[in-house]
Amino acid sequence: MNNVNLKASERLDDLLTENIKIIQSGEVFSFSLDAVLLGRFSYVPPTARGRVVDLCTGNGVIPLLLTTRTKASIVGVEIQDRLADMAERNVRINKLEQQVRIVHGDLRHADKQLGHGVFDVVTVNPPYLPVPNGEQNVNEHVAAARHEVHCTLEDVVKASSRLVRSGGRVAMVHRPSRLVEIFCVMREYRLEPKRIRYVHPRAGEEANMVLIEALRDGKPELRTLPPLIVYKNKTEYCDELLDVYYGKRTELIQPPVI
Amino acid sequence: MNNVNLKASERLDDLLTENIKIIQSGEVFSFSLDAVLLGRFSYVPPTARGRVVDLCTGNGVIPLLLTTRTKASIVGVEIQDRLADMAERNVRINKLEQQVRIVHGDLRHADKQLGHGVFDVVTVNPPYLPVPNGEQNVNEHVAAARHEVHCTLEDVVKASSRLVRSGGRVAMVHRPSRLVEIFCVMREYRLEPKRIRYVHPRAGEEANMVLIEALRDGKPELRTLPPLIVYKNKTEYCDELLDVYYGKRTELIQPPVI
Repeated sequence: MNNVNLKASERLDDLLTENIKIIQSGEVFSFSLDAVLLGRFSYVPPTARGRVVDLCTGNGVIPLLLTTRTKASIVGVEIQDRLADMAERNVRINKLEQQVRIVHGDLRHADKQLGHGVFDVVTVNPPYLPVPNGEQNVNEHVAAARHEVHCTLEDVVKASSRLVRSGGRVAMVHRPSRLVEIFCVMREYRLEPKRIRYVHPRAGEEANMVLIEALRDGKPELRTLPPLIVYKNKTEYCDELLDVYYGKRTELIQPPVI
Repeated sequence: MNNVNLKASERLDDLLTENIKIIQSGEVFSFSLDAVLLGRFSYVPPTARGRVVDLCTGNGVIPLLLTTRTKASIVGVEIQDRLADMAERNVRINKLEQQVRIVHGDLRHADKQLGHGVFDVVTVNPPYLPVPNGEQNVNEHVAAARHEVHCTLEDVVKASSRLVRSGGRVAMVHRPSRLVEIFCVMREYRLEPKRIRYVHPRAGEEANMVLIEALRDGKPELRTLPPLIVYKNKTEYCDELLDVYYGKRTELIQPPVI
């Protein structure tokens, strides 16, 4: 591991997978289960020639996770300078500069810088909520991670559609409450949802998270995978969730490599 | 029970709920789990003043099931004369003529006969598959139940949207593989999906059925209910499925009456 330079409010955590370390901050950005599950769910290119881009990359958690599954080159795009800086340091402390590059920029113009239709895979864990009316009771970083301050759902889908090649895949994690909008906007931008997995906090409860994979220019036919249950009681993770979390069981959440 | 007049290939079965009998035929039409689950999932009007219409009613299985849950008046619409006749006899043998009326006609023009925006609830178990290219290896009745011979998905959604009142509900059972199309077409006709429940044959298997409830002119926000698992092993139904099937447990699959 390279030297770590922590800034105010930051801490150094284990990413819980193959000894990767990650700088995060409760005040600015820390990864959640959503990011881990997306990092496991997404298709990854089978060779180092593959190209992946992660939008709304935050502190770079998803690129870091993907390096444990693929040798493909990975770009992380982040608009907030404080977070792009944190992501860059996360790449450096894990000595991943050869594989991961962080781009500090706006995803709405990312294709101009990165190229049109050149990526095999796009991953994105976007903000889940529209910008609320009235005051926001949180700091600007937390607000931007939760609310569509810097980009709307349509911006995210449009950018993904521009960056991915025809036949390439876009993997997104989002709230199931917005699924109708997600499907309709994806279709508008020629991303056909092909594979979906719901995450329920406990058996017998409604889903609060959904993983979606779409194929650029794909033929309509959606597969609905078995649900993933997070907790087996008030505090303990289910065995399957633990296996997915720690990367011991990827075959259930991950598609076959094509 | 009234006298039963069975025609060629027909048999008289129990509907497995409150002593309702049902005429069906393996050659023409027999109900399946899909219909039973839709009959349990759908919202029902709380009083006899409510109005329900069931499209693609077949032998009338869903209207018969709904009579165990509501005193509302129910219309069943069926285009095939052989099936409309069977549905009418099913109403008569169960002495339900005061509550259920079968209309032999085309759902694409049903609003002209039944009225525009006059129903509180529409239920529909439409054919699941587009009309295949090439020969169909089944008889015309089975083909029409499975394939979109007499109506497409868009016809069904359009007809539902015309028949239901603003704020009324449309409940549909369909294949999850077509969910993207269903959502997009529903939204086009101002039916907003609000509640969805997936049915998986066994735990750990992909969903093969989905129950969807949409609200006419509803605000976007979808609830994803806990999954329903059908079998606990190769042949035995899960306890929850049995309870739903026999109507002992409706609260898990049924929304609160509003």
